[in-house]
Amino acid sequence: MAEDAKCPDCKRINEVLTRVGDRWSVLVVISLAEYGTLRFNELKRHLGISQRMLSLTLKELERDGLVSRTYHAVIPPKVEYALTELGQSFREPVKVLGVWALDNLATIDAARAAYDAQSEEQAKSA
Amino acid sequence: MAEDAKCPDCKRINEVLTRVGDRWSVLVVISLAEYGTLRFNELKRHLGISQRMLSLTLKELERDGLVSRTYHAVIPPKVEYALTELGQSFREPVKVLGVWALDNLATIDAARAAYDAQSEEQAKSA
Repeated sequence: MAEDAKCPDCKRINEVLTRVGDRWSVLVVISLAEYGTLRFNELKRHLGISQRMLSLTLKELERDGLVSRTYHAVIPPKVEYALTELGQSFREPVKVLGVWALDNLATIDAARAAYDAQSEEQAKSA
Repeated sequence: MAEDAKCPDCKRINEVLTRVGDRWSVLVVISLAEYGTLRFNELKRHLGISQRMLSLTLKELERDGLVSRTYHAVIPPKVEYALTELGQSFREPVKVLGVWALDNLATIDAARAAYDAQSEEQAKSA
């Protein structure tokens, strides 16, 4: 990405948002914030996410230091996920984003419907 | 996506985050919030984003009702982008997310370095 003097922080913000700004990460953080500790399959059921996508998301969140992974050597083995201290601090921005999303879902739906109707009109008259 | 009684809002939050939660959308909103009105090429230079990705991002933001597109019939034609009222209301959650990202960039970088070093160790000893 090109650097620009007008937006010195863009590149750095971008780096972080690439990881923590994606929707599945946000939903995993919300779930762990709500339930404390969850196992892989609990998260999977809870979010309705595919095995592969959840595995990827958890690995990235663990790498970024937002989520901890604890392996319990019992039979059968148990792996649990929870928020780290950094993950806890991410709850507030995530909550603000989630609340905004819910508050404005109807408005966004209406905007999309209007946009699509207009695009269809234009396609017909073209 | 499967619905789950434990997370009735997941699906709806997910729908919105799919669009508004991606990093380029966030950076476009930050830029328009800062500068008011920008032309396509100004945004492109400012963000160091590809033509194709900016075009896609603006189209989605316009469809979601967050960004307005104004065509001025001058020579050469001028197209300007700005935040709508809904886009303005999105500034607050975006700001909270951006501030958190900047505050925690160093911590995340350190976590990634530690994770990668450990993964390398494990690969060697495997």
